[in-house]
Amino acid sequence: MNRNSAIGVFDSGIGGLTVLREITRLLPNENTVYLGDTARVPYGSKSKETIERYSFEIAAFLLKYDIKMLVAACNTASAFAVPSLKTGLSIPVTGVIEPGARAAAGATKAGRIGVIGTEGTIKSSAYTAAIKAIKPEAETFVQACPLFVPLVEEGWAEDEVTAIIAQRYLSGFQDAGIDTLVLGCTHYPLLKDTIASVMGEGVTLIDSAASTAIEVKKILEEKGLLNNGKAPGAHRFFVTDSPERFMAVGRRFFGENLAAAELAILTEN
Amino acid sequence: MNRNSAIGVFDSGIGGLTVLREITRLLPNENTVYLGDTARVPYGSKSKETIERYSFEIAAFLLKYDIKMLVAACNTASAFAVPSLKTGLSIPVTGVIEPGARAAAGATKAGRIGVIGTEGTIKSSAYTAAIKAIKPEAETFVQACPLFVPLVEEGWAEDEVTAIIAQRYLSGFQDAGIDTLVLGCTHYPLLKDTIASVMGEGVTLIDSAASTAIEVKKILEEKGLLNNGKAPGAHRFFVTDSPERFMAVGRRFFGENLAAAELAILTEN
Repeated sequence: MNRNSAIGVFDSGIGGLTVLREITRLLPNENTVYLGDTARVPYGSKSKETIERYSFEIAAFLLKYDIKMLVAACNTASAFAVPSLKTGLSIPVTGVIEPGARAAAGATKAGRIGVIGTEGTIKSSAYTAAIKAIKPEAETFVQACPLFVPLVEEGWAEDEVTAIIAQRYLSGFQDAGIDTLVLGCTHYPLLKDTIASVMGEGVTLIDSAASTAIEVKKILEEKGLLNNGKAPGAHRFFVTDSPERFMAVGRRFFGENLAAAELAILTEN
Repeated sequence: MNRNSAIGVFDSGIGGLTVLREITRLLPNENTVYLGDTARVPYGSKSKETIERYSFEIAAFLLKYDIKMLVAACNTASAFAVPSLKTGLSIPVTGVIEPGARAAAGATKAGRIGVIGTEGTIKSSAYTAAIKAIKPEAETFVQACPLFVPLVEEGWAEDEVTAIIAQRYLSGFQDAGIDTLVLGCTHYPLLKDTIASVMGEGVTLIDSAASTAIEVKKILEEKGLLNNGKAPGAHRFFVTDSPERFMAVGRRFFGENLAAAELAILTEN
């Protein structure tokens, strides 16, 4: 493991590619290895124990590729597994929740922050805890939105049905008087327009992808692990289910640079 | 393995409990072992290779409980894995597709049958092939309905949003002039009222749970494996993710007789 080693990034599926995209924009010379656990997606409705187990299996797989740090580019995995990954692995680990919480705490003026996410992320209270740690006087309001991921995957991000469902999920926030809303799931940035039109102009939407990339850069700098090379980084992609579907949908998230994905065989703990 | 051995039943999650319920109604003296693969649910959006692998892992687990036959109580697993399970296992195997196709072929008068299911079930063309084999002159019309499972799991089975989505998915069938519609996913019977009100009175809805139970009885009779005992059968439940959530939601599918579920550890192939 050295400066030229890759950054390992994982997600339950394709959503984490939005985080990978921000990392490669900010750090274009870094090599990356991405794993999407498409055979077991979604994580959002599953238990902490299962998500921890899956995350450690993925970490073991990525460590074989000599990664110098690990990014949990999935809110549910960040909520449930990042604390134990930080303790259990010898390389630096970051999730998307602390960077997202920091961005939200910085953006709010009223000190009233809404958080949306999967059932798992919301039940974990990870965002509420992270926001309180940074800005103790802030008040947080949370709402699980289980249908948002299937709606995005159906390709209905801009659909009138999605607008009706968003209105229903988000109506509680309108009464709460929030001025900042954390999009606490990597699929949700694809619903940004729909969510923005429900919430109105006075509410800032926080997508943790960009702030996670900044956190990755900061950690690599601190550890002396930033890649000094001039060549553009190489990007390798693994999935646990069929690569074909991942490639087709993944380009919506990552753009045309998505190279061929390979099938990963994980070892169950 | 003998007459007193249990019937093994599996599904990606809880939906297969509707099939188990019909089996226990028709054959109240049979012992059963159910496995819900809740850690890897859903199956409907995943590849044939992955679903075959999962199904063989589950079969290996259930065979340790000395089952005398195996029922794939999941349409996607039936479409993708039952043919190879039949070849690969030494006990009788049935899925839900052949029984459902038989019921639909028996019910249609116009010879025009609609089939709805997950992306995987519809892409497999398993229902179309099974219906053609029974009634070659029948015409089938198919539609994947990926949002139906998440809507049921959100508890919105009777919701106006679900009615709008059902109208959109099913509108093609109205033009096709079908008189029979196969509910090709074990979650869909919970949407029966919504689907019926879109399709109208002229269309018979086919739920394969009851016909699968009849098929199970027929196979056990043929093999001389029907349980002759007088005592009510014992029912054991395993899940691969947290048993608590399964218990809560599972009672909606199976009723109050759902005993405590246990955590299963599968061995990955």
